[in-house]
Amino acid sequence: MAKQPTLTPQSEDFSAWYNELVYRADLVDLGPVRGAFVIRPYGWALWENIQRELDAMFKATGHENLQFPMLIPMSYFQREATHVEGFSPELAVVTHAGGEALEEPLAIRPTSETIIGELYAKWVKSYRDLPLLYNQWCNVMRWEMRTRPFLRTTEFYWQEGHTAHATEEEARAEVRQMLDVYATFAEDFAALPVIRGEKTEGERFAGAVQTLTIEAMMRDGKALQSGTSHYLGQNFARAFEIKFNDVNNEQAYAHTTSWGLSTRMIGAIIMGHGDDAGLVMPPKLAPIQVVVVPMGRSNDEDGRARVKAEADRLVAELRRAGVRVKLDERDANPGAKFYEWEQKGVPLRVELGPKDLDAGSALVKDRLAADKTTVPLGGLVAYLVDGLPAFHDRLFARARAFRDERIVEARTMDELVEGVERGFVIATHCGDPESEKAIQEATKATVRCIPLEGISALGTTCVHTGRPSGYPNKVVFGKAY
Amino acid sequence: MAKQPTLTPQSEDFSAWYNELVYRADLVDLGPVRGAFVIRPYGWALWENIQRELDAMFKATGHENLQFPMLIPMSYFQREATHVEGFSPELAVVTHAGGEALEEPLAIRPTSETIIGELYAKWVKSYRDLPLLYNQWCNVMRWEMRTRPFLRTTEFYWQEGHTAHATEEEARAEVRQMLDVYATFAEDFAALPVIRGEKTEGERFAGAVQTLTIEAMMRDGKALQSGTSHYLGQNFARAFEIKFNDVNNEQAYAHTTSWGLSTRMIGAIIMGHGDDAGLVMPPKLAPIQVVVVPMGRSNDEDGRARVKAEADRLVAELRRAGVRVKLDERDANPGAKFYEWEQKGVPLRVELGPKDLDAGSALVKDRLAADKTTVPLGGLVAYLVDGLPAFHDRLFARARAFRDERIVEARTMDELVEGVERGFVIATHCGDPESEKAIQEATKATVRCIPLEGISALGTTCVHTGRPSGYPNKVVFGKAY
Repeated sequence: MAKQPTLTPQSEDFSAWYNELVYRADLVDLGPVRGAFVIRPYGWALWENIQRELDAMFKATGHENLQFPMLIPMSYFQREATHVEGFSPELAVVTHAGGEALEEPLAIRPTSETIIGELYAKWVKSYRDLPLLYNQWCNVMRWEMRTRPFLRTTEFYWQEGHTAHATEEEARAEVRQMLDVYATFAEDFAALPVIRGEKTEGERFAGAVQTLTIEAMMRDGKALQSGTSHYLGQNFARAFEIKFNDVNNEQAYAHTTSWGLSTRMIGAIIMGHGDDAGLVMPPKLAPIQVVVVPMGRSNDEDGRARVKAEADRLVAELRRAGVRVKLDERDANPGAKFYEWEQKGVPLRVELGPKDLDAGSALVKDRLAADKTTVPLGGLVAYLVDGLPAFHDRLFARARAFRDERIVEARTMDELVEGVERGFVIATHCGDPESEKAIQEATKATVRCIPLEGISALGTTCVHTGRPSGYPNKVVFGKAY
Repeated sequence: MAKQPTLTPQSEDFSAWYNELVYRADLVDLGPVRGAFVIRPYGWALWENIQRELDAMFKATGHENLQFPMLIPMSYFQREATHVEGFSPELAVVTHAGGEALEEPLAIRPTSETIIGELYAKWVKSYRDLPLLYNQWCNVMRWEMRTRPFLRTTEFYWQEGHTAHATEEEARAEVRQMLDVYATFAEDFAALPVIRGEKTEGERFAGAVQTLTIEAMMRDGKALQSGTSHYLGQNFARAFEIKFNDVNNEQAYAHTTSWGLSTRMIGAIIMGHGDDAGLVMPPKLAPIQVVVVPMGRSNDEDGRARVKAEADRLVAELRRAGVRVKLDERDANPGAKFYEWEQKGVPLRVELGPKDLDAGSALVKDRLAADKTTVPLGGLVAYLVDGLPAFHDRLFARARAFRDERIVEARTMDELVEGVERGFVIATHCGDPESEKAIQEATKATVRCIPLEGISALGTTCVHTGRPSGYPNKVVFGKAY
């Protein structure tokens, strides 16, 4: 643990800050193939915690997990016209296997609607077979040109839910339910406030009738799409023949949905909470919630032994209380340890030295506070256990205050241009894709979403064209990752 | 739930029994690409339970999870001569991505020693960086010619542990520790007795110095290799330059290990416990441990309501007690339901009808017993909760008795030929690979392992060549999957 160089401040170069931090905080390392990163234990533990919480929410809403093969015949992509247009430029293709050329090339899944459509067609015969409520956790591959750890990588990890329903109403309710699951997860676990909304036509998933999204604001004011839920209508059902006998014994196409949340969420956590000192981990997902650092001079053997006994007791009690705690007994300078754990965003740090023991207390450093707090040993476990949900609440409140302060309403293009430099802009839009494109070219901002619960656009006119609003609500503009 | 055709009896055609059962019990379905199967929810839930228990054991022995990229440059395989020979015929190769031909083709990992070796070389500089104790859960691909669900598939799911150590002693202790973890898992969770042993040279992992294995007996007397742990010596360390400064500040190559257990374990559970009625799930891994089937005539509304209330209460209590329970309220003939849950191997089934309620009792059917037991409602939860570990013990005892009855010692080739028709044969072998090959050609049996705790071969001679034993212990011969 040699002294590390400090991170580039966020205000100086947010992008450099991010690119330095993901490596220094041991989240990722470079792999040998461009755009594919190694996710190191500290990063993967965060993903495992995300998986565990989300998976419980999926199961609580009646979904089951399964697993489809990763390789998909290229011809499958051709069956849904919009889908092939969206995904074929990004496919990685297996042409040889077992020492021979394949008759038909196989794509590594960029998403699994096509192969799942093929199987759903086989599984669904009658309305009694519906709904199908399935999800899979897996890796997918999209050959991106410009890659960044967690945000845009050729291989990434996600879950993809795929459901089939007898009616449009039921399918749309599923799409909304899963968006709400994502929003609840983002807010209650990742401590990231999100705006729930619908994507405009140009930003929809390839093949979808409707795409719902949750949008979070990063600490540079940019938006990060953090989870999406799609109503696919009968598009994939027609392409793959997912037909069933309805209650009247008439043939009907199923209505399908898909919804996904990926390792991008790690990027959202990094950029939504991090500061110049490094990461700030939301406690409910933090790989390490509390770190205990024993102190004491190396020549004070008795003091170190007493500290070790107290630290071991503390760690055991915290584990029993369900806290993810790490005891950092490494032979290193405490300052270097503090620096490392701050950078890794551990919410609460306990410093325990012989003098503290003599005084019957310990020092607690909170990742969001500048000062340390002296806590009596007798109340230390309760202080830490209670401190974690309180930390979550403060972190969420901080992120929401930051975001709300950077959302402005705009009535003119000048106001819009100024607003998206700092954050999100709420404005009326006519809905014309050409106008959206022109705004993007001028400002680099896009319509992030039409909020589900927003400001009515009734009687207002488009900030760009002056025409009537294309949507019930004013839309959210922002620059985005 | 139309009446299903009965399974081919095991005694008639074990292979047909297996191939019918995996589909009928909703474990898998065929995918569009040869050899890649869809693992359906009932099969995937079993794998999730396997993952959860194993993962806890890995973490308890100090390992952390991470994730390496799936695509590996083809040149990496060339660096370890034995490894490339073993794996290159089975590789699936990506030659195109993002609409262009790649400069270097990329293989989908068949196993990850090579890419991990590359990164470990970067992470290990000093003895202080050792050991590295990492594991990943992932999909891998080996282009097999003849495939069977779970046993041999082009894509499969597994965990691969990869560790690096400063000394041979430490690495060999790790290899043995992880074999013991697998054996404990097989016996204490999957209820499958296993023989721990070492592979002969010809059966070793490509690139390993030593391969340890656990071998289970299936109910046709054949062996299934169910988990392997490899000491890789310094082979991969030399190939990938995993070097470090040792305590004397001299450069040394690390000693590495790898160990894996895959979805083959599902095949072991199916064939190690199943019978003519279908699966028998070991309770600790069973997706459904108890199924509750409410009974009653469709015209007896009052009776059905009373049964539903009691069934709901029972299910809620069992859930609180941590039991994975399913309430089967489908509108279908109870006989068809019984047939289905027997075939799916649910350990305990509760039948609850109005007459049972009047009598203050329920009927419990145990998957291993022929008769049903009448259990008073007041003691039903305790009966079921206690019944699950007891079921595990009986299942394990049954499998062990079955196996032990089919293990014989052979002193002559005639005895060996006869013995491997029914099960395993313990015999002395000279260790000559040519002799092993000749035995395989004559009997289709191979040396499954040299048991770690077995019968001393001291003073005995080879069953085939009459030469002195090549190993301290007599070896285990068997036909294998």
